[in-house]
Amino acid sequence: MAKQIHILNGPNLNLLGEREGSIYGHVTLADIEQNCQEECARLGFELEFAQTNHEGDLVELIQNAGKTADGIIINPAAYTHTSVAIHDAIRAINIPVVEVHLSNIFARESFRHHSYVSPVALGTICGFGPAGYILALGALTSHIPE
Amino acid sequence: MAKQIHILNGPNLNLLGEREGSIYGHVTLADIEQNCQEECARLGFELEFAQTNHEGDLVELIQNAGKTADGIIINPAAYTHTSVAIHDAIRAINIPVVEVHLSNIFARESFRHHSYVSPVALGTICGFGPAGYILALGALTSHIPE
Amino acid sequence: MAKQIHILNGPNLNLLGEREGSIYGHVTLADIEQNCQEECARLGFELEFAQTNHEGDLVELIQNAGKTADGIIINPAAYTHTSVAIHDAIRAINIPVVEVHLSNIFARESFRHHSYVSPVALGTICGFGPAGYILALGALTSHIPE
Amino acid sequence: MAKQIHILNGPNLNLLGEREGSIYGHVTLADIEQNCQEECARLGFELEFAQTNHEGDLVELIQNAGKTADGIIINPAAYTHTSVAIHDAIRAINIPVVEVHLSNIFARESFRHHSYVSPVALGTICGFGPAGYILALGALTSHIPE
Amino acid sequence: MAKQIHILNGPNLNLLGEREGSIYGHVTLADIEQNCQEECARLGFELEFAQTNHEGDLVELIQNAGKTADGIIINPAAYTHTSVAIHDAIRAINIPVVEVHLSNIFARESFRHHSYVSPVALGTICGFGPAGYILALGALTSHIPE
Amino acid sequence: MAKQIHILNGPNLNLLGEREGSIYGHVTLADIEQNCQEECARLGFELEFAQTNHEGDLVELIQNAGKTADGIIINPAAYTHTSVAIHDAIRAINIPVVEVHLSNIFARESFRHHSYVSPVALGTICGFGPAGYILALGALTSHIPE
Amino acid sequence: MAKQIHILNGPNLNLLGEREGSIYGHVTLADIEQNCQEECARLGFELEFAQTNHEGDLVELIQNAGKTADGIIINPAAYTHTSVAIHDAIRAINIPVVEVHLSNIFARESFRHHSYVSPVALGTICGFGPAGYILALGALTSHIPE
Amino acid sequence: MAKQIHILNGPNLNLLGEREGSIYGHVTLADIEQNCQEECARLGFELEFAQTNHEGDLVELIQNAGKTADGIIINPAAYTHTSVAIHDAIRAINIPVVEVHLSNIFARESFRHHSYVSPVALGTICGFGPAGYILALGALTSHIPE
Amino acid sequence: MAKQIHILNGPNLNLLGEREGSIYGHVTLADIEQNCQEECARLGFELEFAQTNHEGDLVELIQNAGKTADGIIINPAAYTHTSVAIHDAIRAINIPVVEVHLSNIFARESFRHHSYVSPVALGTICGFGPAGYILALGALTSHIPE
Amino acid sequence: MAKQIHILNGPNLNLLGEREGSIYGHVTLADIEQNCQEECARLGFELEFAQTNHEGDLVELIQNAGKTADGIIINPAAYTHTSVAIHDAIRAINIPVVEVHLSNIFARESFRHHSYVSPVALGTICGFGPAGYILALGALTSHIPE
Amino acid sequence: MAKQIHILNGPNLNLLGEREGSIYGHVTLADIEQNCQEECARLGFELEFAQTNHEGDLVELIQNAGKTADGIIINPAAYTHTSVAIHDAIRAINIPVVEVHLSNIFARESFRHHSYVSPVALGTICGFGPAGYILALGALTSHIPE
Amino acid sequence: MAKQIHILNGPNLNLLGEREGSIYGHVTLADIEQNCQEECARLGFELEFAQTNHEGDLVELIQNAGKTADGIIINPAAYTHTSVAIHDAIRAINIPVVEVHLSNIFARESFRHHSYVSPVALGTICGFGPAGYILALGALTSHIPE
Repeated sequence: MAKQIHILNGPNLNLLGEREGSIYGHVTLADIEQNCQEECARLGFELEFAQTNHEGDLVELIQNAGKTADGIIINPAAYTHTSVAIHDAIRAINIPVVEVHLSNIFARESFRHHSYVSPVALGTICGFGPAGYILALGALTSHIPE
Repeated sequence: MAKQIHILNGPNLNLLGEREGSIYGHVTLADIEQNCQEECARLGFELEFAQTNHEGDLVELIQNAGKTADGIIINPAAYTHTSVAIHDAIRAINIPVVEVHLSNIFARESFRHHSYVSPVALGTICGFGPAGYILALGALTSHIPE
Repeated sequence: MAKQIHILNGPNLNLLGEREGSIYGHVTLADIEQNCQEECARLGFELEFAQTNHEGDLVELIQNAGKTADGIIINPAAYTHTSVAIHDAIRAINIPVVEVHLSNIFARESFRHHSYVSPVALGTICGFGPAGYILALGALTSHIPE
Repeated sequence: MAKQIHILNGPNLNLLGEREGSIYGHVTLADIEQNCQEECARLGFELEFAQTNHEGDLVELIQNAGKTADGIIINPAAYTHTSVAIHDAIRAINIPVVEVHLSNIFARESFRHHSYVSPVALGTICGFGPAGYILALGALTSHIPE
Repeated sequence: MAKQIHILNGPNLNLLGEREGSIYGHVTLADIEQNCQEECARLGFELEFAQTNHEGDLVELIQNAGKTADGIIINPAAYTHTSVAIHDAIRAINIPVVEVHLSNIFARESFRHHSYVSPVALGTICGFGPAGYILALGALTSHIPE
Repeated sequence: MAKQIHILNGPNLNLLGEREGSIYGHVTLADIEQNCQEECARLGFELEFAQTNHEGDLVELIQNAGKTADGIIINPAAYTHTSVAIHDAIRAINIPVVEVHLSNIFARESFRHHSYVSPVALGTICGFGPAGYILALGALTSHIPE
Repeated sequence: MAKQIHILNGPNLNLLGEREGSIYGHVTLADIEQNCQEECARLGFELEFAQTNHEGDLVELIQNAGKTADGIIINPAAYTHTSVAIHDAIRAINIPVVEVHLSNIFARESFRHHSYVSPVALGTICGFGPAGYILALGALTSHIPE
Repeated sequence: MAKQIHILNGPNLNLLGEREGSIYGHVTLADIEQNCQEECARLGFELEFAQTNHEGDLVELIQNAGKTADGIIINPAAYTHTSVAIHDAIRAINIPVVEVHLSNIFARESFRHHSYVSPVALGTICGFGPAGYILALGALTSHIPE
Repeated sequence: MAKQIHILNGPNLNLLGEREGSIYGHVTLADIEQNCQEECARLGFELEFAQTNHEGDLVELIQNAGKTADGIIINPAAYTHTSVAIHDAIRAINIPVVEVHLSNIFARESFRHHSYVSPVALGTICGFGPAGYILALGALTSHIPE
Repeated sequence: MAKQIHILNGPNLNLLGEREGSIYGHVTLADIEQNCQEECARLGFELEFAQTNHEGDLVELIQNAGKTADGIIINPAAYTHTSVAIHDAIRAINIPVVEVHLSNIFARESFRHHSYVSPVALGTICGFGPAGYILALGALTSHIPE
Repeated sequence: MAKQIHILNGPNLNLLGEREGSIYGHVTLADIEQNCQEECARLGFELEFAQTNHEGDLVELIQNAGKTADGIIINPAAYTHTSVAIHDAIRAINIPVVEVHLSNIFARESFRHHSYVSPVALGTICGFGPAGYILALGALTSHIPE
Repeated sequence: MAKQIHILNGPNLNLLGEREGSIYGHVTLADIEQNCQEECARLGFELEFAQTNHEGDLVELIQNAGKTADGIIINPAAYTHTSVAIHDAIRAINIPVVEVHLSNIFARESFRHHSYVSPVALGTICGFGPAGYILALGALTSHIPE
């Protein structure tokens, strides 16, 4: 049976492609999901793709993934910088987690330079826009034992 | 068709008039809504008035207002000081947002002196109690083109 | 009629006994509830026991307890360190609140050393694992007038 | 006899309308005074309107207002961020003081984020340009007992 | 032979019941000792109870307890916040140590928010007044193997 | 010919006895001058006594005293905490300067804990109300060679 | 019966007159005691004069003075900057305490700029060498009711 | 003619595979170069691969790449955290730069959490070991126009 | 008609040559004016030269220069480090401003290391004593179009 | 024999005129050398002009100049902000050193606001572009005794 | 007569060899004294060797050594990081003082990285375990004139 | 075959004996090498002695020593405070490293109080001038197994 990957997206990412084009570009989250589904198919993985604006939902999506999936890609968006709860949820599970950011958070406001997720992630990919998700799939799947 | 304003209220404001009278007075949130409805009627605007204790709900109320309303008045209460997600939601929309606080947050604990909302708001009104909402309606509606 | 106590648990505590045994041990939250029910019965109090991963839910559980209960024990978990909203909710009610932490938060990462809940709690008990809840029941019930 | 309001303006506001149009717009301080005079007439208050570039003059204008006026609106401009003397002068009088800023000081350089005036003001209005003075008149006059 | 507990009290606690009643209440240290003796008798433990105003004495009381006792309850009072020597003494022994504070140190001056003792204690109980000692006895004795 | 002392008073001290009685008491600056004149007469010194709300005036009063007087007592009030110019003026003269504060500035807001004047003063006297001026006269005159 | 004053001196002050003449001068502590005895005799007060190098001794000297004396002058020397225990001892008594420093601590290393004693003292006198004790006697005795 | 990529490696990376296996693994830099050469061949790019322990050499390697190459992948190792010169060199050129780190720098000492390179890089990939270079090649080559 | 330059000098510079010779040397401000007049004559510029001890005067001298002069040289002395008002005045005008300091402010106390003027000046010259004014005239006049 | 001046340039200055025209302009380092050679000829000095991207080279160029030259002009570029070694090299020699920066470093990123070179330089000139070198030659040569 | 050296040891060092073997090893303080006695005999010095857990005792041991000994070796243990009193005692004497630490304090908790003793010691030796005392004897005795 | 020790010296140490005699004395680096050669001969070790002004050279000297030597003594001079690269090089090798400083770095500017080398060194010796190298040889050789 195919291994399963969950891609979890945080607040305001549902607006992707609509807002602040100079920072985030014009690709929508649906486009990204489509690309990721195709890449997963190519790599032989199944994909669940979710977005929520609620910190508590992200905590539960991570907990559930920890029980049913083999790896997580997470773009925690604004909660990256403020959520100890997400940090704790990731620490509580035993599957690899890759952190993705569309924009280069280190070239933006200083309050975006700190991530509560990075220290508990396998690794981080940031600044490559939607392509970052595909890179993250490559990085993550190579850490999932067959 | 009448222009529309959304007034969004954050956590614990549902308790207004019940709690900490020395700081917040004895007017209830229902009283404030009533006053705002009358002022909007006088000014020729329609009003949606909401309260939630959930950060994610505020994010979505802002996103929705960004699609259907002409301006927002927000009293983010405690999330003022901790929510990058609300900051991002306001940045992602293209209508004017006025920030209101009932109490003078600068005369209280130091953790209330910083606002993630102020830098992305049109302006801020604080310290005038319920009257601040009426002032905010005046400030906001003068920025909504007819 | 018996006095009522609400025990409120924050994010990821539903995983107790499953995650990070070296820090949190192997007792589950259901075990803790069971012990607390027995202790309350012994002390002559009624107990409501809840867990949520949502900050806004904790705010509302506190508000509700403020209306119907005689005292609160709260383990805010990760929200201890980030939630002004919970701080405000506790300030808005008039019943005693005891803060509990399973682990010794002062022996962990520095971002766990600050609590927004402590300054508005009656007192704090941390580091004793599940036994902390029983201690907290003793501390709290002695502050509830008959 | 009519109640009296003093509007006090700090350094460089005499240049208003001449300098940095992108931040401050093209209305002059004389225009603002004109608008405020009309609004005061409408509200049944008398108005004194002053500007100075000297910290010590602001201190004395506040002291004098404290003896002869019923309320103060102050735009301390640059002295907002550096003057303990103005803070002390406001504390030393017993009439309400409303702080106004033309621009959103929270969206500018970090040294403009702190105000020595806010903690001793009744409330603060910032970011609404010249309209902020009219809002402040509304806010202030509602706090002056007849 | 009965297991032995040492309760060690730091500077100014000899004044308990005489000073600052609004913070510390009117129970004396002798009252607390009396209560603790009774509770120890009930639990089947022997109790040594000491107070000193000297940091070096606390260091030596801890060292001695480390050689002859089975557990320590310590209220380091002012030395909580300044003594690395007490921190080191606790690290140097192999019996469980419970930290107690009468008042809620987190609701007082900021220099009382940091404890050098907490990171090397089994756990901390603060804010419950004299009852905190009894809670601490419960917590400590459950960690002493029979 | 008699030695001469200048006593220089900073902003808002002209209000003394009128404002904030709980902090500053009910003695006026004229009362203080009267007491100081009498003490100087007793000690055989001539006294100039001045007050200003302007930082630049204080600078010039210090410069002038440096040319014509034998010692200075200065209560810089709010400028204590913000004025490098006064610091520099004191450094530029060669007569002893004693700093006086009516209230205990260390028991007030943290922004009053730092003084630019202290490092260049002979010594500091604070917290004794109007009596501080008489103490300062004693301290200063004993440093003026006959 | 004569009112009683206790003068308490902290660590290394026993070396006065022997060490670091450029900072502390050549007067010995015995000289200072002699001067203070004479001044007390003149003022009609009895004097106890003590020195210790032990923080705990200072705590106890303060506690004892609180029971038998009418006022305290304290030069806490190095413990000024590090002792919360002395801060607490002073808070626990109900007689006036005047803080004295021989040197101008604000013109020395930055770790000498903060005093734990100042916020709980009646007032502070620093920088006048041995004469500071005499000034302090004047300041203190005028606060002791006959 | 084929587009050219330069991969630049900073200090101590020549020891890769020999040192600190628990952090960096057992692959050597020669292995990484081999893998990158193969991936570049597959993608149709030419590759220059360099390592140096000298900050100045990295500056010049970047300057040269800016003149002759179409993109850079840089692992600045220790200079990540201390070199403004490398930051300036990257700003001075007009080709995309991708930053790679073998280990998760955010899970290590705090002095490794800040990068002078990130704000001027296109994006960052960290924590994936040698595989990070291959991910970086994918990310970089998609930003090089054909 | 000749272009006009204003040289503006801040507090205590009127004492130049009298005070602190080891830092500031023995040249007086009149000497400096004389040298600058001669240099301006040589360069074909007219010169206004002013000194004031008042922050507000400096603000107005800058405003006036902005209306009638072609360039400003300013030595703000102590106000360099504390005046946002001068910062704002310089931003409000459209002629080049060169900042001069006689001494090397970076080799003095840390509170002299920050300048509110530097970020809004064309450039800064410091440490060369009176010669700095002549250098500044060269720098400034080359930026004034004929 | 003519006195000798060394002008030393730090990292990335070899790119001058090629990179970031909006900050650094379009003059090349060769142009600057040419101008400086002409100015030195006019002033009767010999000039050595060097550039390096290596911190260690700058250290040695300073050491050598200390042995053979009569004065140094240094533009340390990025090493300004990070090099204690250059600070030490300047301290170790006995000839005057003038620091030059092309751009106004105080109007750029905060990490460019601190200079390790300024406290050991004779003086600093910044913000005047290539003309700063000519100003520095004037400043330096007037400090070289004939 | 032989020159005399005092070796002074601070709090908890009496436990050496009993506690925390992984940090401090298994040599006891008596072993160290034995080794130091032998080394002193070899070098022709007399040795006094003391240990105390009291800060005040260390102050007095230093004062006494200052009167009767020719040099001090001090291992202040925990008081290294908190004692201004010991700093002052060392400043008050005129014999060389060498600071020793058994463990590498810079590789431990950050509160152990600062020493109040280092700035007033001749030099510091840390990290070499008991051998550090012998090294210190070599360093110290070479600074004691015959 | 004899064990080998490498002594590595950082920037500006080649100037020893020539510069800043009051801090560093008049012994040259050649003198120190001579003394160390003699001491090594006495102890039966071979010695390599090197100095460089380049950070990258120090990195490589450490790497090489890690392959061919049995222990390192390093005086990193200015790079002590700024070089993560040297920190990493030391971590990457498996032989003991002793850090030496000629002067007492803790009695100098605050930027010299932090060392990147100390946490990865076996131990540190500072403040004893050239004798520190001989002490370091003693300390190091006793950690090299025969």
